[in-house]
Amino acid sequence: MTSRDRFFAACRCDSLERPPVWLMRQAGRYLPEYRALKSRHDFLTLVRTPELAAEVTLQPLQRFALDAAIVFSDILVIPEAMGQGYHFKDGGGIRMDFTLDGAGQIEALAAGAVRERLDYVAQALRLVRRELGGETALLGFAGSPWTLATYMVGGGSVDAGARLKALAREAPGVFGTLMEKLAVALVDYLKMQVENGADAVQIFDSWGALCGDADYKQWSLDWIERVIAGLPPGVPVIVFAKGMAAHAAVLAATGAHVISVDWTCRLRDVRAAAGPGVALQGNLDPVLLNATPDAVCAGVEAVLRDADGMPGHIFNLGHGILPEAKVENVAALVATVRAWRKG
Amino acid sequence: MTSRDRFFAACRCDSLERPPVWLMRQAGRYLPEYRALKSRHDFLTLVRTPELAAEVTLQPLQRFALDAAIVFSDILVIPEAMGQGYHFKDGGGIRMDFTLDGAGQIEALAAGAVRERLDYVAQALRLVRRELGGETALLGFAGSPWTLATYMVGGGSVDAGARLKALAREAPGVFGTLMEKLAVALVDYLKMQVENGADAVQIFDSWGALCGDADYKQWSLDWIERVIAGLPPGVPVIVFAKGMAAHAAVLAATGAHVISVDWTCRLRDVRAAAGPGVALQGNLDPVLLNATPDAVCAGVEAVLRDADGMPGHIFNLGHGILPEAKVENVAALVATVRAWRKG
Repeated sequence: MTSRDRFFAACRCDSLERPPVWLMRQAGRYLPEYRALKSRHDFLTLVRTPELAAEVTLQPLQRFALDAAIVFSDILVIPEAMGQGYHFKDGGGIRMDFTLDGAGQIEALAAGAVRERLDYVAQALRLVRRELGGETALLGFAGSPWTLATYMVGGGSVDAGARLKALAREAPGVFGTLMEKLAVALVDYLKMQVENGADAVQIFDSWGALCGDADYKQWSLDWIERVIAGLPPGVPVIVFAKGMAAHAAVLAATGAHVISVDWTCRLRDVRAAAGPGVALQGNLDPVLLNATPDAVCAGVEAVLRDADGMPGHIFNLGHGILPEAKVENVAALVATVRAWRKG
Repeated sequence: MTSRDRFFAACRCDSLERPPVWLMRQAGRYLPEYRALKSRHDFLTLVRTPELAAEVTLQPLQRFALDAAIVFSDILVIPEAMGQGYHFKDGGGIRMDFTLDGAGQIEALAAGAVRERLDYVAQALRLVRRELGGETALLGFAGSPWTLATYMVGGGSVDAGARLKALAREAPGVFGTLMEKLAVALVDYLKMQVENGADAVQIFDSWGALCGDADYKQWSLDWIERVIAGLPPGVPVIVFAKGMAAHAAVLAATGAHVISVDWTCRLRDVRAAAGPGVALQGNLDPVLLNATPDAVCAGVEAVLRDADGMPGHIFNLGHGILPEAKVENVAALVATVRAWRKG
């Protein structure tokens, strides 16, 4: 069974001896070969140059027997392609070049230019697909409408979503226009990724937990549902719902094929709430990768036992790999998952 | 019925026409009179000077008909009293003067000096109690052992709890020594607060969600339980469990009289999981206080409807007031809660 077949089987909730494994931010600063490239090119150059993005995408696959690659890119390429650029601040963190401040600026966003402006992502995917052949799954990704809008309306500062929530409450029509444009752009972008080699896509709703329980569906999940409905049937969609595992039932109702959860929950509890038709992804605490191989093995096995007998599990972290992660720990993680046999 | 009686009644899960109301960080930067004091004294001077701490504590009570005051202080006074000071960084945020790095430094922490070194908190409480008389509830507080330890072992940087988790896993004996010392210090400190006028205490487990589901009880909740068991019976204890509302059953098992939850959950769901014997506190999204009075009223009423018919509810936010909160919105919040009559 190829890694790619295993990945698709998990998304379909087929029973498997061991789950497929990949890791959020598996291409990144913890890898010396990534840091070497980064010392010669800035982050946005890596993202925008197809050959470099492909090289970074493939770096972790050359070290570890991962079942999937995920194209190296950034969620904020979408606002940028719509006309709202961003830059990195000197002290760390990002800032949008301007904040969306009213209906006029939102009207001016271009939802139709995404394919053309993000052609470099399509090129990177084709390069990666050529290297991977049919053996390994290749994932595309994007931020959710809500999560992108927190940056676009908040400007990139940590404002706890205050500006975006005010917009959603006080000017629901303008909020709806923004989310509609984002949904259109995201459907176009994710379709482009699939047409250029992505087997599946992950939608990162990293800031969904800024929504209150009462607003989560209307402000975030309904728009994710809208994006999923616009994608070609048969393409698995993973929704990463940081901090919102307790909302598994409404998450499953978006049409997501896979729900990706963080480490604060038990997969068996999420499964009980989500129902049998949806696969789960997760949920090792990423800081374990800063520790020791023994600690990693114990943690991985705890997750595998939690998920045991559960058809439809993709092994992953509960959040992205930290820059301090140790390469030998990532190797131990992958080896432990691959050695697992369903109990 | 006095505010104080109402507060005690809610902690006992007695049925009430309307819940008592207070707000985390109700004394703080959103108040012009706080900013005026702060322009003349730095934060730690406000904390360490009983007259100033008492003045700050009472400021919100002079504006708003709150049912409880909470003594103005800081959770990091405990590490400081144990021998590990801290300071504010120029760019914002705090840093411990050193990080706990091994068994020797942990052995050197003084758990027994808390009453003497934090006498200024006792003095502030007595001053506030004198002003409040028996009308209004007065709360003391402290950080949980786990949450304090994230600062003490992490040094105050955002390391996702990596260093503390490594200690807990790799040197459980040393971790246990640290938690034991913190538990002893916290029991002493909270008892001192009660003896000097606090009617109830809140334990902030602000970083509990750094724990994985499997470790939460052992790393955080068992130590909270230990602290609660050391307090005089009859003193209500509130446990603030940011990001962990889905764990209501184990939270209730700590012996907490009240569980304080954030805005990502419905109180009725938390109630169902926690069982009937424990009161709930929360859970309005604090960013609503940056919005408009109308938005605040709608949000407050949604929380009140969620809690309606539920004995044992203390109205509060899901996290502390933000500096951008508007005074008129806090007034609208308090007025809306006070006007509520159980449906």
